[in-house]
Parts: sequence; structure tokens; C-alpha cells
Amino acid sequence: MAYFDAASALPLHPVAQQALVAAVADGWADPARPHREGRRARLLLDAARETAADAVGCRPDELVFTSSGTAALHRGIAGALAGRARVGRHLLVSAVEHSAVLHAAEAHRAAGGTSAEIPVDRLGRVSPEAVAEALGAAPGPTALVCAQSANHEVGTAQPVAEIAAECRAAGVPLLVDAAQSLAWGRVGGDWSLLAGSAHKWGGPSGVGLLAVRKGTRFAPVAPVDERESGRVPGFENIPAVVAAAASLRAVRAEAEAEAARLSALVERVRARVPELVPDVEVVGDPVRRLPHLVTFSCLHVDGEALLHALDRAGFSVSSGSSCTSSTLTPSHVLRAMGVLSEGNVRVSLPPGTAPDEVDRFLDVLPGAVAGVRAQLAAPVAGPDAARTPGGPAAGETGELVIDSLGKRCPIPVIELARAIGRVPVGGTIAVLADDVAARLDIPAWCEMRGQEYLGETARESEGGPGGSAYRVRRLA
Amino acid sequence: MAYFDAASALPLHPVAQQALVAAVADGWADPARPHREGRRARLLLDAARETAADAVGCRPDELVFTSSGTAALHRGIAGALAGRARVGRHLLVSAVEHSAVLHAAEAHRAAGGTSAEIPVDRLGRVSPEAVAEALGAAPGPTALVCAQSANHEVGTAQPVAEIAAECRAAGVPLLVDAAQSLAWGRVGGDWSLLAGSAHKWGGPSGVGLLAVRKGTRFAPVAPVDERESGRVPGFENIPAVVAAAASLRAVRAEAEAEAARLSALVERVRARVPELVPDVEVVGDPVRRLPHLVTFSCLHVDGEALLHALDRAGFSVSSGSSCTSSTLTPSHVLRAMGVLSEGNVRVSLPPGTAPDEVDRFLDVLPGAVAGVRAQLAAPVAGPDAARTPGGPAAGETGELVIDSLGKRCPIPVIELARAIGRVPVGGTIAVLADDVAARLDIPAWCEMRGQEYLGETARESEGGPGGSAYRVRRLA
Repeated sequence: MAYFDAASALPLHPVAQQALVAAVADGWADPARPHREGRRARLLLDAARETAADAVGCRPDELVFTSSGTAALHRGIAGALAGRARVGRHLLVSAVEHSAVLHAAEAHRAAGGTSAEIPVDRLGRVSPEAVAEALGAAPGPTALVCAQSANHEVGTAQPVAEIAAECRAAGVPLLVDAAQSLAWGRVGGDWSLLAGSAHKWGGPSGVGLLAVRKGTRFAPVAPVDERESGRVPGFENIPAVVAAAASLRAVRAEAEAEAARLSALVERVRARVPELVPDVEVVGDPVRRLPHLVTFSCLHVDGEALLHALDRAGFSVSSGSSCTSSTLTPSHVLRAMGVLSEGNVRVSLPPGTAPDEVDRFLDVLPGAVAGVRAQLAAPVAGPDAARTPGGPAAGETGELVIDSLGKRCPIPVIELARAIGRVPVGGTIAVLADDVAARLDIPAWCEMRGQEYLGETARESEGGPGGSAYRVRRLA
Repeated sequence: MAYFDAASALPLHPVAQQALVAAVADGWADPARPHREGRRARLLLDAARETAADAVGCRPDELVFTSSGTAALHRGIAGALAGRARVGRHLLVSAVEHSAVLHAAEAHRAAGGTSAEIPVDRLGRVSPEAVAEALGAAPGPTALVCAQSANHEVGTAQPVAEIAAECRAAGVPLLVDAAQSLAWGRVGGDWSLLAGSAHKWGGPSGVGLLAVRKGTRFAPVAPVDERESGRVPGFENIPAVVAAAASLRAVRAEAEAEAARLSALVERVRARVPELVPDVEVVGDPVRRLPHLVTFSCLHVDGEALLHALDRAGFSVSSGSSCTSSTLTPSHVLRAMGVLSEGNVRVSLPPGTAPDEVDRFLDVLPGAVAGVRAQLAAPVAGPDAARTPGGPAAGETGELVIDSLGKRCPIPVIELARAIGRVPVGGTIAVLADDVAARLDIPAWCEMRGQEYLGETARESEGGPGGSAYRVRRLA
């Protein structure tokens, strides 16, 4: 059994466990009360704040604890926007931010603000130039820029210091979502706000942190009270905060050595997976990346089925494929990068992962992928695909139409792959599909197979979503 | 050493402690993930929801967990108001609600809504008639009524079922803040929303609960995500939620016996304190009340000094006096009740409190109060006070003016008490004071001393707050 989903959550670090039990005994009282139990709780809270601030690289009075990383992002973004509401109401977020940031942007728009996404390259990288361009293209003064320190799905590390410099030059504050990288080190650069989440570094659930550097305009969103500098209302969760701070210090002490070790294991996965599994796209920046995380997508594979196959084989991983999410849309991160989303697997190694666990994963993966492909009767890779016989030929328009309406990913792509051999080189196929993943995966398939993607046209339908026609020209 | 501040927070119940440690091991993963660790976390979360819903008296799908009782109130109020925004924007809250409710009302007004407070009687009781009257007097359709199940400062239990019936008749939802009473039993009556807080019943910090009964219009405040039925965003704090639910069930099993036992101890305090300490007002409903809580105010006593004296003597209690709060205003609860606020002490007994601890408290209290009074050179009680000699006589207007500007509670009242003997029966004194506690305590003093309170007039001042003149006629 191996848990390779560290980027979702980590089990409690032993230091956090010890600190939690101790602080439950000593830190349960109300720190606002002047009695001995309250004073003891206050001391624990103050000490935890100092520890966390030191790890973040800010002053203790710049840091507040929230109830989750999501709460830190929501409060940070709303507070920064409100603090600069008189300057402007435009919000810029990178296209690969955590959904909590995108939800905050959505709420901002619903409240009358504007927002735009800063595009990324195919590696998922937000370039400082793209930030500068987005700042220049804003419909009015930009109130805030949000950029993560490293991506949660593909591991790409962002050039935060350079982005911060662009923002500083434009006089716009930068909020950094450091949830994925805080375990590995401080976030450099002249950022204005920073958010983190304890269960990502082995701390307990229920703790986020928000740093707001002095000089940053900030108007906490009401209602608040006198707790946490008037920025986060409600009774402080001191035992969990103490455990969070203690474990952050502990993981930092081990970070450099562990990063080197896990990075080598990730490198092994990055190198071996494309050798072991046909038709795989490893995504994300191969160099500037988180040490413990690697993501790849497998053509003609149902992500959910692959996850279940790996789970049965004893490996817990995650996926950005649409089939595993409740929304039935593929990961916005993969979409923004323009990479294949089907059969997507994210491997994120917890500290202490043994090399032989990774080797066992590499042993198991090819069979798991092959099993899912066989179940879906997916065509085999390579030039053979174009020789698949049978089925109707192209219609009167000279175009073969494949009706994949109502079929979920990766079926539309598999049907396209099966049919491509039935049109002559130079001929076209139109795939009718209403699974939005097709928008990502059909162009990705064309690129992987050397076929030409001609574009998408929305279909008219009587009642209900009509989907789109995705047109492809056979080149090979 | 005795901790008598249960109404602020309780140490973790042993059942909660066990459940927390077990759930930290089994429930740390993301319950939204389909792998085994995620499924195990999901099962724990679902089981905790069933347990908590059973204790609350609602369906599991009507209950969500929040990060604190305050968060439950804030989300519940905002969601209910937004759900009925098209009906009306008026919010009614009882005048003795927890500050989290008052802060939510303030935020609602800041966002363009209206709100009003439902007055209480001298026992702190919200009568169904007062609710009906407030509903009738609303400037427009009322969107929501908030009333607590029992008061956190004075222990008065509210007639929730009758209030709910009034609200139901008017077609207005009722939100009940059940934070103080949930340990003791379900809240009866046809309420629409209910909020609770785990650390009040011996559960961990970091867990609140919000029940929204089916049929209640509710629009969660953005941003949210797919967690907790789309009502509370962010990673669920499953270990704490499991511990909260387990301890709620455990305290309920002991509730009836423990309530009877603590209620008798509270009765002892209610009866003995006025016998042991001169010039004390025991406040709150003597019969319809929380079993474990009693509050009294001591004339001519600095609440903070008394708390420190009791703390040194080994007793941790709380106070609604202005001097112990960061805002320097006396408790809004005592103000709404119109009772004395100075030297206020709240005793709230944790489960398991031994009778001899209460007896020791009763032994220590008179000396502690006397010590603080001696330090303040407060006049002794009874008819002697009127015979205090010396000092200037009444001025030209026939009125003695006492300048207590810049002096904190209870000094203005003490100076009034010292001076009353210097005016003839029928004569008047004007006390100039800028501590807002005087507004509450001078009338209360008059009532306790059988003098006539004539009213307050705001003073003009050159720059800065001028305070008020409080006029008193000597009758005895």
C-alpha cells in the first residue's frame, strides 16, 4: 500500500501529533480571558505565531491563522480587494490557480468587480511578461494579482520574485498561494500577501495561514471580531495552530535533504513512464518544479478507471481528468496548459517515500493502463491506428461524422482514433461530442498522432446542450 | 484550582480526546478523493454528521460543519438573509444575542440592510410578545429572526418554541444560536436554522455546526466550493468533527444527571452570594436557566480587579464588566437587561464540578470583594453611606457636581456614593463621567440605594468626547 497523494493532504507529522496532544491539554481555553487557563492558551498562540511567521518570512504581527488554506485565500483576496476598492476593482489571477482563487474571482465578479486570467505556457508557467501584459491590458486599475508559488496539479514552480517585481513596478499588490511549496521553503520576492495550508505540510486539518505585509492596504471582510487582529473571527483553534506551527518547523528542518531525495524519485517517474507506457504525455516543468510531484496523461484512458485500478493495486494517486471530479469538467490547469487531460494521473510523494515503492508503482502502472485501454477497446498506438478497418465511410459532404454525443471522456477520442483509418489521407472527420473534455483531448490527440486539428463549431439543438463538432483532417 | 468558566470553553472531553487521536490516524485524507484513504475519511465524516444530526434533531443532509460557532452563525445568518433577499431585508435579533450575531447584523446594515433589536426584560428574557411586536414594527418584511436558546452571560433560557411559533405564524424563519444549550439537550420548537459550537460542550476547537431545515430558503455566501453541500468551503477538519460528534453524544448521555447536580450547585451560589457579600445583584432568570451558570454584579467593585483576585485565589471565572473587555464598554447583555454591570462575575461550572469546590469559592468570594472595595476606598453599604462627612457642598445652582471625567468604572459610582451624604434630602447631584458603564451603573446604584435617578444629558466639549452628566436626587 502506498499513498502518493501528498498534494491533497498528508498524514499528521509525528511532531504535529505530539504538539496537538500537548496543546489540547494546555491550549483549550479562551485566549481572550485573563484567567490562568486563558493566559496559558494565549502564550501558546503567540509562540505558534512566532514560529509560523519565521517559517513564512514575515513579522508575527503580519500573520493570522485561518480555518483552512481556502479560508486564507478567500479572506486574503477579499480583504486586499476591499482595501483597494477605491483604487480599482480589477483582479488578475493566473489561469492555473487553485480553484479557491478562481471561486474568489467569481465572487468578485458577481459583486460587480472585474477579473481576468493570466495565461500560462504549455509547461504551466506564468511568465513575468504575461503578468506585465495582463496588467497593461486591464480595463481599469488592477487591485490585486494572484499567483501561486507552485502548481498543485503539475508541480510547475512559478517565478514569484520576478512576478512580484512586475507587480511592485505597477504598484499592485501580489498575493501568493504558497500552499504547495511552504513545506519546502520560504517564498522569496517582494510579495504583499501569502496564504498557506497546514495539512499540506503534515500539520492538522483546520489551519490555514494568511500573511499581510505591513503597508499592504487591507480591509477585512465583515463580520469580524477582536480575534486574530480583527481579520479572522471566531474562537481560535489553538491546539491545531500549535501543531501546525511545530510541524512546519519540523518539516523545514528536513526539507533540503528530503527535496533532493524525492526529486530524484520524481525524475525516475518522469523518465520511466513514457518508456513503460505508450502514448503518455508527462506534463509540467521538468526542471523548475516541486520536488515531490509529477503528472502525466495517458491517451485513450478513463482517468477514473485508472485511479480505481491503481487503488486496487495499492496505490493512492489523484487525477485532473473530468471523470473523477464532481463537476464533469477536466482540470482547468490542464486546460490552461493545453495538454491532454484524459487518463490523467498526479503522483505526489509524501516525505519518507521509499525508492522501492516508486519502483513497484512503475511495475504496476503499464498493466493498469493497458487494462483500462483494453476495457475501452482503445486502438493500439502508433501507425497501426490508421489501418483500423470497417465502419461507414465518409458521407456525402466527403466528411465522416462520428456521433459521440452523450459519451464521456475518453470515448469520443477513442472513436475518433478508431475512425481515422476510414477516411483517406487529406479527408476529414467531424466528431460530435458534448463532453467538454473533448475540447482539450481532441486537439491533444491530433498533436500526439500528427493529424491536423481544424477547430470546433457549436451545434444547434432542440432543447438541451447540443455539444460541438470537432473537425480533424487526416494527415498520416 | 478551579475552572469556573465553562461557558467560554471546556477542556476536551475524554471521549473527544480518544476520538480525535483515532480520527487523526484514519481521517486525515481528502474525503473528496476516491482512493482508500479518501473513502475512509468520507465514511468518518458521514458517520459524524449522522451523530451530530441526531443530537441536534435534524436530518444529516440538513447539517454542515463549520470552523467555529461564530462561523456557523455568520454563514447561517448571511445565507438565510441572502435566501430571502427578494422578500425583505430586515433582520431582527434579540438584544442579548452573542456578539457574533450582533456583528453579523452590523455587516448586514453596512451592506444596505436594516436590523433592529428585540428588547428583553430585567431577567434577560425575550418574550414571544416582544418578538411579535418587533415583527409588527418592522420597516418592511422581515427576512430573519435570531434568538438564542439560552444566554451565554446570565444563563436565562429563552422560550424558543413559542418564539418559533410567532415566527412561523409571520412566515419568517428563526435562527437559533444554541451554543450554550446544545450540551444539555435538543432545542425544541419549529426553528428553521440552528448553530452550535463544539468547544462549548467539550469537543475540540475549530468545529461549529449549522443546521438548515428543509424548506428554508438559503443562499450560501460566495465563495464556496463543492464541500459541505456547497455551504462551507475548504478542506474538512474531519478529526475534529469526529471528536466533536462523539463528545456531543457522550455529554448528552450524562446530561440529565449532570444538569440536576450542577443546577443544585448553582442554586447554592444564587442563594448564598447575596447573604455573604453586601450590595450584590444576582442577575438572570432564577428558574428558566442553564443548569451550570450564574452571574452576579458587585456594587463598587472593579470587575477586572475582582477577576484577578479570584484568579490568585485559584478560581477562573469570567466577567461582563467593561474593564475586562478590550472595547471598554460593559456587556451589551447586562445593558439590555438594565442591571448593574460593575464587579460582574460569571460562574459557569464544568461537568464534574465538586460541591466542595463551590463551597471554597463561596468562602473566598467575600474576602476578594472586600479587598477590591477597600483598595478603591469604596463607601460601606447601607444607611451609613449617606452620613459620609466632608467635601464641598452643593454649588450655586443648589446641585453638587462631581467630576469623574476620565475615570473608569466603578470610580464614578463610588464618587457618587461618597458624595450623596453631602447634599440634603431632596437635593441633587450631577456626576460627570465619560465611561459608558456609568450609563448602566448609576441608575442601578440608585435603585439599589433607594435614590432617584433623574436622567442623563450629553455634555458639550471642546475637542474630544465630553461624556455625560448623570443627575441623581437624594431621597434617603
